[in-house]
Amino acid sequence: MNITRKNFKETFPLIVESINEADFLAIDGEFTGLTNGRKSHSFDTPEERYHKLKEGTCDFLLVQFGLCTFTYKHEEKKYISKAYNFYIFPTPLNRQASDVRFLCQASSLDFLARQSFDFNKVFYEGIPYLNPAEEQSLSDALQERHNQSMNNELTYVSPSYESPAFKGPLVIPEEHKSFIADICKKIETFLKDEQETSLQLPVCTAYQRKLIYEAARKRFKMGIQLDTQTAENRDRFIVVKKASEEEKKLVEQKKREADWEELKDAVGFSNVIREITRSGKLVVGHNMMLDLMHVLHQFASPLPEDYEEFKSLAHCVFPRICDTKLMSSTNPFKVNIPMTDLGNLTKILERAPFAKPNIEFAAEEHSYSTVANQLHEAGYDAYITGLCFISMANFLGTFQVPIPSRIPANSPLLEPFVNKLYVMMVVDIPYMNLVGADLKPNRDHVFHVSFPASWRTSDIVQLFSAFGHVYIAWINDTSALVGLNYKDNAGLVMKTIGEGESYKIQTYKDYCQTTQVICQTTAVLKRKVDGSPPVKSPRPPKKRKSSGILNPDLPPTIPEEQEETEHEDLGEPLTKKLRESTTDGVVADIECTSQNERRIKLHPIRANRWHPMSGSSQLLQNVFQLEQGQ
Amino acid sequence: MNITRKNFKETFPLIVESINEADFLAIDGEFTGLTNGRKSHSFDTPEERYHKLKEGTCDFLLVQFGLCTFTYKHEEKKYISKAYNFYIFPTPLNRQASDVRFLCQASSLDFLARQSFDFNKVFYEGIPYLNPAEEQSLSDALQERHNQSMNNELTYVSPSYESPAFKGPLVIPEEHKSFIADICKKIETFLKDEQETSLQLPVCTAYQRKLIYEAARKRFKMGIQLDTQTAENRDRFIVVKKASEEEKKLVEQKKREADWEELKDAVGFSNVIREITRSGKLVVGHNMMLDLMHVLHQFASPLPEDYEEFKSLAHCVFPRICDTKLMSSTNPFKVNIPMTDLGNLTKILERAPFAKPNIEFAAEEHSYSTVANQLHEAGYDAYITGLCFISMANFLGTFQVPIPSRIPANSPLLEPFVNKLYVMMVVDIPYMNLVGADLKPNRDHVFHVSFPASWRTSDIVQLFSAFGHVYIAWINDTSALVGLNYKDNAGLVMKTIGEGESYKIQTYKDYCQTTQVICQTTAVLKRKVDGSPPVKSPRPPKKRKSSGILNPDLPPTIPEEQEETEHEDLGEPLTKKLRESTTDGVVADIECTSQNERRIKLHPIRANRWHPMSGSSQLLQNVFQLEQGQ
Repeated sequence: MNITRKNFKETFPLIVESINEADFLAIDGEFTGLTNGRKSHSFDTPEERYHKLKEGTCDFLLVQFGLCTFTYKHEEKKYISKAYNFYIFPTPLNRQASDVRFLCQASSLDFLARQSFDFNKVFYEGIPYLNPAEEQSLSDALQERHNQSMNNELTYVSPSYESPAFKGPLVIPEEHKSFIADICKKIETFLKDEQETSLQLPVCTAYQRKLIYEAARKRFKMGIQLDTQTAENRDRFIVVKKASEEEKKLVEQKKREADWEELKDAVGFSNVIREITRSGKLVVGHNMMLDLMHVLHQFASPLPEDYEEFKSLAHCVFPRICDTKLMSSTNPFKVNIPMTDLGNLTKILERAPFAKPNIEFAAEEHSYSTVANQLHEAGYDAYITGLCFISMANFLGTFQVPIPSRIPANSPLLEPFVNKLYVMMVVDIPYMNLVGADLKPNRDHVFHVSFPASWRTSDIVQLFSAFGHVYIAWINDTSALVGLNYKDNAGLVMKTIGEGESYKIQTYKDYCQTTQVICQTTAVLKRKVDGSPPVKSPRPPKKRKSSGILNPDLPPTIPEEQEETEHEDLGEPLTKKLRESTTDGVVADIECTSQNERRIKLHPIRANRWHPMSGSSQLLQNVFQLEQGQ
Repeated sequence: MNITRKNFKETFPLIVESINEADFLAIDGEFTGLTNGRKSHSFDTPEERYHKLKEGTCDFLLVQFGLCTFTYKHEEKKYISKAYNFYIFPTPLNRQASDVRFLCQASSLDFLARQSFDFNKVFYEGIPYLNPAEEQSLSDALQERHNQSMNNELTYVSPSYESPAFKGPLVIPEEHKSFIADICKKIETFLKDEQETSLQLPVCTAYQRKLIYEAARKRFKMGIQLDTQTAENRDRFIVVKKASEEEKKLVEQKKREADWEELKDAVGFSNVIREITRSGKLVVGHNMMLDLMHVLHQFASPLPEDYEEFKSLAHCVFPRICDTKLMSSTNPFKVNIPMTDLGNLTKILERAPFAKPNIEFAAEEHSYSTVANQLHEAGYDAYITGLCFISMANFLGTFQVPIPSRIPANSPLLEPFVNKLYVMMVVDIPYMNLVGADLKPNRDHVFHVSFPASWRTSDIVQLFSAFGHVYIAWINDTSALVGLNYKDNAGLVMKTIGEGESYKIQTYKDYCQTTQVICQTTAVLKRKVDGSPPVKSPRPPKKRKSSGILNPDLPPTIPEEQEETEHEDLGEPLTKKLRESTTDGVVADIECTSQNERRIKLHPIRANRWHPMSGSSQLLQNVFQLEQGQ
């Protein structure tokens, strides 16, 4: 169901109802761009990745948000789903509101266009939004404006009259004097004519209107009311009406009420996110780190500088999330899933050993067909993400005796995946843990190399050729991180090639200390002894020369079609453990859920840190209260 | 006539013909945003304004370009016009091409949406473009790629295979080994089957395709050709074909030719600008500084840091321009034109003392009606800009005896307005002179004041109250330029209020010296003695506090509806002079045309400065040759 500015207000109660009755929610977002600035690479720590994405992607805009709710009907043993596809755009409410500047990436818009994305729907009918701080600020400004107009008797104030603090007189320039005199004469005649109740003045410029307001204020002490109106063709003109002081006050009162109503409407789409938060329901997404960051940035609070504060904010807004990309890249799923992109994953999960879940749409307007390829419409992507989640959850059930008919969203079997975000491309740290410390694998086999800009991949391969295959993660034109495939060789590197004329090698540990990257050598994650990361050959960055000519400030290439990341299991095969433990559902080397609860209780205090305005916002307080009550 | 990627190639010859046969051209552009960064104000010098606009607006994108050609038919005594409305978008040609990131302003997109602007046409069908440097760079990259593939026998190279420099072996990870073995078996069977000519491999990921290319290269030394193809639903797969070495070479040859053709097409819309340059025709625009800057930035060369180089570049690309906003704001027009925005101007110029010009569209597909309000579609705006120009040009003729039936675009009567760009809001420097020094009016009555952030307009008015009305131009929260209405009081300011505890006052001259603003006290422009700039009250900027909360990096407000600028005549009333001098048509205190010619001859040398790549670009050389020949 498409939701735009036109039907948002009337549909909102239905959306809230859908959220409240659901077992879990699935979400997805579409953005105006993906990458800008520093490139992500395969040895990023989750903290580094957060900072790179924060710098690079939050200037882009989330313009479409998909929400699909899934409710299990026990009698019929099937899920009922409702899909909502929201078009979102920050149409400025008024001149006090921020006029958002956002970035677009040509290749991303081209990609969306090829998916028949309707840009006109975004810019014509996008639902506006305000985060709580913006709402508070506009509310304060409106209150101040109302107070001022009450005190100053500025009864002529037009909505576009912006300068209540200005008290200097306005001089009518020579060339406008006859025009203004003519207008005043018209108003005078109008006031004498008892038949007429309103007078439309000719279309004129903003400056001329300002002169008219000023002149009328001086000339006609009372008895009239001026109002600037806009014609359909955007021509603006003033309408003069006769009004007693009583009538004027009534009009002012109505205007004020309309102002408050307008502000309430301007909070718009943010209310959907607030309802999701309030519900406390499990929110499922596919490769959802970017979606989550955009949602927080646009609808909750600008992303914090501090990584721990980000985790806190994310967990406060989404108390319980699950990333299907992380699930599908982890055993017991991984062995049966060669491709984890959403389109292919959906197809794979319909076939054995998985099973297509039993799902029905609540009504025609919510329906999607998995046959019609609507991939990359956010509502559809949210829907199939939910399908994938159900298939995988139910697959976990097949290891139990007896096999349950379905695995609910709150099942302990799912806990190992809850509140962890998939981290793209990183082999040894597959997820960001929102409710605990991140994994800190041993990287003794990784080295930082700096070299001349003329070096290519082959030069690095050559340098390390004595140690077998290597995995190279380019940082920029003149440095890279290099991981040995045969880790046993790690001790030899510094001794044999540690000194070079044209290059410089550091251990990863030394590199981290110099660049203050958070890394420790303690391996929290048990790794399979026989597993080894595959050797990949990332495309070397363009020579600085050619990219500089085209546009020195922008990276020179289109982002590659993201390669499937091949990474290790979360720990020892989950399958066996799942058979042994059905109530706890906790794998020893993954943070356990009892920690989650403690963190949740901490949140109301933490949340105040990331949001200085929150104390005074009723809406955010409600969110907190609900959080505390959990 | 709408021109998109779909009909551009077939229409281009017609467009060139229209340009070549025309008496003059009118242009207009629509952008994704207008303002960002430092605010323009009424005491900007043209150089300051250039730098502000360059910083603030070139991150936005020109997405629609209007071109309307006007050809006079002497027999029928009327103009024939052809309107072209181009949709423009930098769809990246390939991975070597720059993937443009551009800025959008929410209020600007909202404005365009209200004018029914078709964003889908831009992103779905926008014509691509390359500036000469980009073209050269891509051409070099393509040549290098072709050379490498010839030398390296990389006959398996797919268009998406990006790393010819990589020579390290690719190890097939354990989990893909059976998949790859299966593929190799399929290819083997296919090669043995004499009936089959091609084999479509299953859809797989980019990484898997890379593994297949690598495995096939090792296993099948010759006799096959691999090609990655994309299905309509964007699924990618490899097609294997049998091919002799001869056939392979032929395919490679065709591929190379197609590559060059594709690059040629990618120059796209830039060719239109090159044709306009080459034609040397008068180009008319309304308030065209932003249009011109965007056109240069996107299609000619990134805007230079140096202001004089910008002028040189602008004059090189547009050898002869005329700004109807400048004309209509100058006498003899100004006295008859209360509103100079394009919509109102068009209406005003249809009535006495002006006259609606006799114009016909060449064909139905070029037609616009001035009744149907298509304002702010670039093609329509270009058309009515041309109408306004003809009306005003012909009006100049009415001062001659006998009155000519029309004033042609090359008439000396128009010279005072040629190669001058209207500068918005600036009272005493109404234009930027592209072919000479800018005006440097006396600003002894202007003062720079710095003060606490809590100050409002009223505080400044209060401070200067002893000297009569003032004009205030806000620079930021804590400083402003203040102009006295009664200039005779200028000498008293520093003596009486020069020292203050909470504020600091400087003369404009001292301020310029400290900020290195170019200004001299020589008044080149004669000013009417009885004229005085109107006192205006620009809205004070928001307090830093509230704007900071909303978004610290962006200005907090929507730009105001631009007020009509009231400024002085270019010099003494033109009317009288025009009667006296019909052949020269030059007003004494405006730079004369003889200078223009000298400057034009200088250009080919100057142009090389702003364009390091130009020497090797055939197209740009042609442009230069034509310039020299003028």
